[in-house]
Amino acid sequence: MTVNEQERDGVIVNEGKMIEALMQQDIRAFREEYLLIHPYDRAVFYEKVDAALRKIMYYFLSPKELAEIFETSEIDDSEYKEFLQEMDTTYAADMISYMFVDNAVDVLKELDKSQIASYLTLMDKEAAAQIKSLLHYEEYTAGSIMTTEYVSVPENSTVRSAMTILRNEAPSAETIYYVFVVSDDNKLTGVVSLRDLIIADEDALIGSIMNERVVSVIVSDDQEDVARTTQDYNLLAVPVVDFQQHMLGIITVDDVIDVLDEEASDDYSKLAAVANMDTFDKNSFSAAKKRIPWLIVLLVLGMLTANLIDMFTETISQVALLAAFIPLIAGTAGNSGTQALAVAVRGIATRDIEEESKFKLLLREAGTGIITGLICAIFVILLIFVWKHEFVIALLVGAAILVSIFVATISGSFIPLFMHKMKIDPAVASGPFITTLNDVISIIIYLGLATTFISSL
Amino acid sequence: MTVNEQERDGVIVNEGKMIEALMQQDIRAFREEYLLIHPYDRAVFYEKVDAALRKIMYYFLSPKELAEIFETSEIDDSEYKEFLQEMDTTYAADMISYMFVDNAVDVLKELDKSQIASYLTLMDKEAAAQIKSLLHYEEYTAGSIMTTEYVSVPENSTVRSAMTILRNEAPSAETIYYVFVVSDDNKLTGVVSLRDLIIADEDALIGSIMNERVVSVIVSDDQEDVARTTQDYNLLAVPVVDFQQHMLGIITVDDVIDVLDEEASDDYSKLAAVANMDTFDKNSFSAAKKRIPWLIVLLVLGMLTANLIDMFTETISQVALLAAFIPLIAGTAGNSGTQALAVAVRGIATRDIEEESKFKLLLREAGTGIITGLICAIFVILLIFVWKHEFVIALLVGAAILVSIFVATISGSFIPLFMHKMKIDPAVASGPFITTLNDVISIIIYLGLATTFISSL
Repeated sequence: MTVNEQERDGVIVNEGKMIEALMQQDIRAFREEYLLIHPYDRAVFYEKVDAALRKIMYYFLSPKELAEIFETSEIDDSEYKEFLQEMDTTYAADMISYMFVDNAVDVLKELDKSQIASYLTLMDKEAAAQIKSLLHYEEYTAGSIMTTEYVSVPENSTVRSAMTILRNEAPSAETIYYVFVVSDDNKLTGVVSLRDLIIADEDALIGSIMNERVVSVIVSDDQEDVARTTQDYNLLAVPVVDFQQHMLGIITVDDVIDVLDEEASDDYSKLAAVANMDTFDKNSFSAAKKRIPWLIVLLVLGMLTANLIDMFTETISQVALLAAFIPLIAGTAGNSGTQALAVAVRGIATRDIEEESKFKLLLREAGTGIITGLICAIFVILLIFVWKHEFVIALLVGAAILVSIFVATISGSFIPLFMHKMKIDPAVASGPFITTLNDVISIIIYLGLATTFISSL
Repeated sequence: MTVNEQERDGVIVNEGKMIEALMQQDIRAFREEYLLIHPYDRAVFYEKVDAALRKIMYYFLSPKELAEIFETSEIDDSEYKEFLQEMDTTYAADMISYMFVDNAVDVLKELDKSQIASYLTLMDKEAAAQIKSLLHYEEYTAGSIMTTEYVSVPENSTVRSAMTILRNEAPSAETIYYVFVVSDDNKLTGVVSLRDLIIADEDALIGSIMNERVVSVIVSDDQEDVARTTQDYNLLAVPVVDFQQHMLGIITVDDVIDVLDEEASDDYSKLAAVANMDTFDKNSFSAAKKRIPWLIVLLVLGMLTANLIDMFTETISQVALLAAFIPLIAGTAGNSGTQALAVAVRGIATRDIEEESKFKLLLREAGTGIITGLICAIFVILLIFVWKHEFVIALLVGAAILVSIFVATISGSFIPLFMHKMKIDPAVASGPFITTLNDVISIIIYLGLATTFISSL
């Protein structure tokens, strides 16, 4: 049995044995098995068993050991509250104080103000102070995801003394692979990687081997920008500073991955018109709750479309075939609008769009709209002509498709860009609104043209 | 001027000065400025200037210096070919041989077979051999993104000798923060982090301080699975082994981030029905090319819907108001289908779905479909009744919405799960197909019911 099977099919993570040990209150057998597996697998097990077994685990594990489990991303933010309530309050406070500060803050943010206060009171003073300093940063900013557990040294220290500092701080620092160099008043002046340190002469001064062009982010920066910067520069951690360049904390690459994942989920949810897919729903009601708001909004918007079509009842009664093409035209407009929207939203997210002028982008989208519109129109005209031999209707549908695609493509890219400029998340505009807008426009064009030329039909 | 401004608004990256130096053929001035900025910013500049200036850069920079620029993610895969063609062939071959093997492979994969062969011939023998060993791995597998530049030590070496090996390999290894421990026949038996090494006793044996439960991936594993494993276990690099546990290479966290980003882009593109948004389009034609295939497919599918409605022409001629609600019903079915699909696709991507049974998931989705369907149906019945005072049509639309949402929700989750089971990328099924399927089903239900009860209308 290779080590690989461990994570592959859970063979080596012996769940049965651990559950049995818990049921039989066999602390030795449990700890022997449990502490050998990876913290991530420990978290998977912890989350999977029921509350009764978890309560036994709190007696079998130290707060520090449990903290390690809470550090993993396996446990969702929404579960923290429930789990903490299962524990003794002092035990929970101890556990939180052993976590890395950024994660401890994530846990506390899920609780009520009074609960936060009571945990902070029970906690080790130093840990409480560090947590308090981070609690007030606004959500989705660099400050809200940074940790203060980094290693810093003064410029005039030697490589040898820096290594000593590193060794001492290794157990508590979140990363020791970057050492940040600060001036007397705590301003960030450079960075040295552990890679550079171990190959440098032990007597060399840090100031002489450090990299002065250090990439940093501002504490109020948006977390997605921070994540993109870390990704672009291939960093394992990025320092966070205030506007005067004072060092405040660092953000490590594991948190960056989680941010990118969260933002991708978020954009994806919005395109699909689901409230929030960040946490996976365990029952029908919570799943329905996330979908109904959008469906209702879309129904109301759809009513507008219905109302609009209703105004053309007379035309439709005369040529009922016209009705057959309404979903086709509205659908095509919706699809091309969604395409343009998705390209713009994604371009904003990956910062590709920042690199060029908005005007050029819109011009390009207009061109794209004309090309796709023309090709689709010609295609549909031929299709209808061959299928129905209705030349006038074919032309009518073709014209409506051409104009609809053109308008949909431009609005699909203009609206998210405009929202981004207004500092609104462009993904909110998303499919639904664009689709309804394009439904309305395309139906007016189609049935308007049909009403005008009704005599030729 | 703080260091931060460097990346913030490009003040410190003095583009004007570098361009001037290039134009005046001032090698000293150019190198002085250019080599001080971060490789990522060098890549941004390199990509931005026109070919004439880039050709001067090839004379001003060594192949090794240029290799560092090509390592960054700023340069898209699609651009490699164009840039290589600007260079002298020997210079290009040299440049590739200086890159990390995994990145060199990425570059070569963009070229024709004959070009690959000619570069490999011109290259340093050892580099060519390493590249060849990686070139044959299938795309999207662990093998295709791994590098062979890792540090390994035998179990019986001491911490001191391991540190010496590390120092020697530091310049060429992609990461030195993990040291992999291998047996005589190169089987992976453990891992030691540099963090553990620097705090360990220098005379300790690696075998005694290493972590034996090392998380690894198999060379044929899907790259997204590899990325998720690295994310779950918070690793900076994951070792890649064959089925006999022989160590083949490592995948570093920066590549993991790029894979997650690529996969997120891919799922997002498919939901939006755009061919591929991985590279940002510079002109209307390439943008149109990515969107037209989907639009045409959707048009053909839309034709089926039109054909279907056409079969009910008689019913519609009798009660033209019926036509007004077609887009509303089809749209609602499409929306709820897309919601269910997105939840399933995302759940598969993040592996949340693996943790529970498919049957339970479908049962839950059926429940969600009934709840959302009922609420939307009641809402729409009230809305139409208040607005049009048409009680029978209100009931008809309500019934159609209830059934459509139910069917759409189930098919929206069943289809991606089925495709995943069949080893087809579930995201391919995507919005368009689900939407058309639901269009057809909802229209049959709606107009079918209407035709049956036409006498009451």
